[in-house]
Order: sequence, then C-alpha cells, then structure tokens
Amino acid sequence: MSLSSGSLPAVPQGFRLAGAASGIKSKPNVEDVTLIVCDDDAVAAGVYTTNVVHASAVALNRQKTPHDRCRVVVVNSGNANTCTGKRGEQDSLEMLRLAAESCGAQADQALVMSTGIIGVFLPMEKIRTGITAAAAKLASDDKALISAARGFTTTDKYEKIAGRSIEIGGRSVQITGIAKGAGMIAPNMATMLATIMTDAQLTPAAAHAALQTATRLSFNAISVDGHMSTSDTVLLLASGKCSPEPLGGDDLAAFQTALNEVCIELARMIPADGEGASHLITLDVSGCRTHEEAHQIARQVAESALVKTAITGADPNWGRIVSAAGQAGVVFDPQGMSLSMNGFSIFAQGEPVPFQAAEVSASIKEHQETHVELSFSEGSASARFWASDLTVDYVVFNSQYTT
Amino acid sequence: MSLSSGSLPAVPQGFRLAGAASGIKSKPNVEDVTLIVCDDDAVAAGVYTTNVVHASAVALNRQKTPHDRCRVVVVNSGNANTCTGKRGEQDSLEMLRLAAESCGAQADQALVMSTGIIGVFLPMEKIRTGITAAAAKLASDDKALISAARGFTTTDKYEKIAGRSIEIGGRSVQITGIAKGAGMIAPNMATMLATIMTDAQLTPAAAHAALQTATRLSFNAISVDGHMSTSDTVLLLASGKCSPEPLGGDDLAAFQTALNEVCIELARMIPADGEGASHLITLDVSGCRTHEEAHQIARQVAESALVKTAITGADPNWGRIVSAAGQAGVVFDPQGMSLSMNGFSIFAQGEPVPFQAAEVSASIKEHQETHVELSFSEGSASARFWASDLTVDYVVFNSQYTT
Repeated sequence: MSLSSGSLPAVPQGFRLAGAASGIKSKPNVEDVTLIVCDDDAVAAGVYTTNVVHASAVALNRQKTPHDRCRVVVVNSGNANTCTGKRGEQDSLEMLRLAAESCGAQADQALVMSTGIIGVFLPMEKIRTGITAAAAKLASDDKALISAARGFTTTDKYEKIAGRSIEIGGRSVQITGIAKGAGMIAPNMATMLATIMTDAQLTPAAAHAALQTATRLSFNAISVDGHMSTSDTVLLLASGKCSPEPLGGDDLAAFQTALNEVCIELARMIPADGEGASHLITLDVSGCRTHEEAHQIARQVAESALVKTAITGADPNWGRIVSAAGQAGVVFDPQGMSLSMNGFSIFAQGEPVPFQAAEVSASIKEHQETHVELSFSEGSASARFWASDLTVDYVVFNSQYTT
Repeated sequence: MSLSSGSLPAVPQGFRLAGAASGIKSKPNVEDVTLIVCDDDAVAAGVYTTNVVHASAVALNRQKTPHDRCRVVVVNSGNANTCTGKRGEQDSLEMLRLAAESCGAQADQALVMSTGIIGVFLPMEKIRTGITAAAAKLASDDKALISAARGFTTTDKYEKIAGRSIEIGGRSVQITGIAKGAGMIAPNMATMLATIMTDAQLTPAAAHAALQTATRLSFNAISVDGHMSTSDTVLLLASGKCSPEPLGGDDLAAFQTALNEVCIELARMIPADGEGASHLITLDVSGCRTHEEAHQIARQVAESALVKTAITGADPNWGRIVSAAGQAGVVFDPQGMSLSMNGFSIFAQGEPVPFQAAEVSASIKEHQETHVELSFSEGSASARFWASDLTVDYVVFNSQYTT
C-alpha cells in the first residue's frame, strides 16, 4: 500500500542528483546507481546498522561521519557488497574514488551505500558506467529526484520521498528525504537506506544529534520481518545554502520537529510497502517507566508472527498481543495492563472486556492501518512503532525463489 | 512430520494416568483432561515460562516446586485459563481440589496445567466431568499413556511420548515423558507442556537441578514462531519405586544423560510438528566464548522469518543466515565465521566459498531435516537449537481464522 502524500517536495538548495540504469538489477532500464552531489562542502551525519556482519560501505562511512566536507553520496542497488571479504572493500573504495572524480572532489569527501544481494562481488564495470551516466544527468528537478529515489530501490513497489518546508529566521528551509526498504533481504534483495538533504546550516555535532533523535523515532521504530540488515544507513546532508549561520536554540528545535516528521513519513512507507503486506500496524505503548521499555514492548508485539497473522486475518485475537508484550524482557504488573484495537477496548486492568469481535474484525478489514494501543501502570513514558502484517504473499515471495 | 521412535516406552512404576474427553475442545470425543496420579508421595520439580503475562496455573505450581509430597497432576487442553483475572485463579484452585479429591490427596499435593485459548473462562462443569471420568480410567498400560498424552494436545498433529530405560545399581530405571506443542497460540490454541515421570529416587534439589539442565538443552532450545507462551511448563515427577535411595554421583550422572535424551527427543518433536512446518531445522553453533552466546546466535538465526522461508524454498540463501547471526547481540569477528548447510561448505573465514547451489538446494528438498552449522573463532563453547521452517500453511493456519 502506498502512503504517498501527493506532490513531490523540492530538492533543497545546494544539491543535484540523478539515478542511472547500469544493469546491476535484472530488470532492464531500472535505475540502480544514484549520485547525490553537494555543490559545495556540506555537513554530513550518519546512523548505521548495529549488525556485527555489515557491508564494507557501512564501515567506511562510519569512520567519516559526522564531518563538514561532504561532496557526494554514491548509491547502488541490486548488490549489497556484504560478506565479500577484501575484494569487496576494494570495490567500495573504488566507488568512492569514481564518485569523487565525477564531481571534482576528493575520495574522502564521498560516502557510499550498497543494497541488494549478500555475498556476491560487485559488477564494477556496470558500476563505473552507472556513475558516469548519473553524473551526466545531475539536476534538481522532480525528474532527477524520482530517478535518484529509484536508484535506491530493490523489492520496493514504489520510490519513497518525503519533505517539509519550514520558515526559520524569515527564510524558507527545505528538508527532503529519500528512503528504500521492504524487507531485510528479499530474493533480489532489500534493506533500509535513506538520505535526507537540507539547505539549513548545521554544525556536524548538531547534524549528528538531530539525526540520532529523528532516527530513534522513525527508522528505528519500524519492522517488516525483524531481520536487521547488514547495510542499514541513514545520512543527513546539510548544504547550509538557506541559513546564514548554524541553527541553534528555537531554530534548531523547529528544524528537529520538521526532520522528525520527514523521517517518520519515510519510515512509515517501509512497513506499508513491506513484502506482501496487507496492513500497516501502528502500535502505541504508554504508561511505561521509560521510552526504551515502551519501545521494547512495542517491538516485541510488532515482530510476533502470531500477532501479524492475526491482523492479516482481521482477527482480534488479543491473547497473542498481551502474551507477546509479556515476553519483551520488561517487568510490569499485568493487573495494570489494558489493550484496545482500532479504538475498541478489549482488555482493561488485567481483566477481559466483553466486546463485539465481529465489529472489531470488520474495522480491521476495512482499514489499511490497524491501531493497537497498549497501556501500563508503571509510569508516563510512551513509544510508537510501525510494522507490516505477515501474509501468504510474504512467504511465497521469500520461499518460492530457489537457486 | 513425525519423529516417533516406534514402540511406546513403559509407564514408570508408581504412576497411573488417563485422559478423558470432556468437551472443552470443539472436536468431539478428543481427550482434553488428563490425570497423572502418583501412588505414593513423589518428588516434583518444575520449570516454567518466564513470560510476565502467565497462567494462574503457572503461578500456583511455581510456589510449590520442588517438593516431595506430590500426588497428582491435572492437565486440561483447549483453554489456557490465562488473562482471566481473579475468577481464573479461583478456577485453577478448584481444579487442584478436584484432582486431589479424586485420589484421596490434599490440594497442596496437586499440580495443574492448562493450555489453549487465552482470555476465556474455563468451562468448570466440563472440567469436573473430565476429572471424574479420567479418575475412573487410571491405568499404567499403553492405552492409558496414549490417552493421557492426547489430553495434553491442542494443535499438535500427534501425541508426543518418549522414554528411556537405564540400569542403575543393578536395577532398571524408567524415564517416560509426555509433551505437547506446535505453536504458541493457534486459533484453537497451543503451548508447550511436558511431564516426565521416573521411578528413580531423587531428592527435590537433585530433581530440580536435573530438570533445569535437561530443559536448557531441550525445551529451551526450540522455536516454532519465537512467541513465548503464557503457560509453558515442564514437570519432573520421581516416584522412587525403583531405587532404594536418592541417586547421587555416577548414578545421578547416568540418570541426567538419559533424562537429557528423553527431553531432547520430546523437544525435537515440537518444531517437527510446528504449525505448517515442512522442515525441521537443526542449528549447531560452535567456537563461541560461552554456551549462552552460542545459544543466542542459534536462536536469532532460528527465529528469522527470512532464514525459515529460505529453507522452506530449499534455497541456500546464506546471506540471510550470516546476517541474522550478526544481530544476535553477540560480538564476534566476522573474519572467523564459517557456515555449512547439510555438510556443504558455503562461507569460510569471512569469505564466500564457491558452491553448487543446485546441489545444496536438492539436499534441502530431499531431507525433512536441514542441518545448519555456524562456527566462530572466539572460543570452544557450542549450542544446538531446533526450529521449524515458515510456510504458507503456517500463515493460512494462523490468519484465516476470523472471529
């Protein structure tokens, strides 16, 4: 299901971008190499997968961010260049060199992201062709933004773009992001990647902190299948073209709010486009001691195959939800626990509430989003989490491909 | 798939048992109440779910074990009596009273297990009828053992029984266990329950320690869907009829070995009979610093929907396995990691190994069991884990039931 908000956001000032089709993906004429070029040195911050097994691209980027001399990001889809040993690392370094050359920058001013199949060497000839082709098409119009976003995608059914325009100090500041992801690894691969561009000016430290906060509330609060990728990367690039000095105080707070909104809008698109998904599940957990505990409970419920299949079947099988909450590793009083689904109260203060199962089932069937609210009596912290449901299509998609 | 070892084990001396059909389950004439009676006071040890949300039966048993005056275990299937508040607790206490009365014991000499749907009150009239009917049929022959095992089952396709006879101090000692489980909660419910009977003599402390050890290697090393039940209970009952004094030293070690074997045989039957399962996956993780770290990696791989669906599709999609290992929360050197599937080397010391994918795929297709071996260079500890794969049938079974 698509969650597109309609018209495309603008590309922030100071950025040009393009996607090119180089033939890495098996489908012909589908973009699989993207360049995002900063006209001048930009601030770059990144957050990455915490998987012990990760792509060489992740290791290389992690060493460099945050910094304030970023000039280019190169992305390829269709091949994750992960578990490819020393040759894989050389290939990532080569991508950085090629991307930097294409815009007259140094290799240490480039960042790289790869997503796709694990354990296969990169087809470097195609990568070279793709980078050259993308460099020749760089622009900042809608067409360029869409082609760049397509270069990120793997098993995604649509490109994922979101943006906000806000007024800061009398100037209009733009924040525009691109994301991809529909499953950890699909037969032809996927993973979560995102790049957020802004023409606001940020210090490297402020960019890093803002991205950490926004990611915690968005990309780290989604799950399709609970399988952490080896390539997950979210970058924030700030060109500074639309603010005379680095943001601070209320201006930075306003920027943070808008950045959170962009990241949440992009993040929600991922489980909504989850492999085989028929429902987007939104979980609100409240009344916990800390955000982390609320988040942990929400994630445990979101990742339960039994909860997901119940929602696929429009079945208000609430025992699956409360029992999943109980295994999250968080201590709570079951007598203080309450549950509602799509606004219907089902379990209150540890006792079952008589409810019309057919009415709740009809509500789940009618809506693409299912809202699950769990509340506890431990404190006042809360968390929100989004997940896809688990369908026959997911299993078919991920099992009926045989080498 | 069934893993039955052929002929039924004997019922250990000092036990009589029976299952009766009381109508709790929707299918007519299917056993749903079981009594296991100890002729004299027996030692009882238990291990239970760690879910914060758990059945009143679990809370009541946990207070009582280990102890040395156990006379009866009453089990019902079709209703878990969980999340049923104060009335649910009263119903569990009533079951204990009725079971004790049926064999002339005190209520504090009884233990109780309930498995089935969550959040529905127990039909106590049926429970009473069932206990009376089971008490009238108590015996120690094959028929009694099978009917008792059927009284445990919910979504299981077959009853799960395993046993060992060993020689200790010139006497033959019998260990016989019953288990059930095919998913955490299925439409008409399931959970993991087991009771192991032996005529060996054990102190309560030794029984508790032996059961903890055996459970760690068996029932705590299996997963169908990663969803921890609210009713999981494993009991060990020792009548002492076949050993003149409590086992110690080498005798206790021999008993432990046989108990481990019985528990592993029963435990393997659960994912093999996992809802919709087409493969039993056996994971061997070695070269870790501790058993716990090896276990944690094995569990993470076993519970990945992407690993499970790959095996369903006979796809040696090894990137899914190594990436799942990397998110287990265990630090390791990816350059010391190796993987084989069904004996074929696929990834060695952090580098891909050229392999014939079609050959590995054919091997996965041909065998009901898939053997995944992951080794690391961190130490010498290892762990074994069993899981079911994830099929279309699992999703259909758990989603196409709508209230």
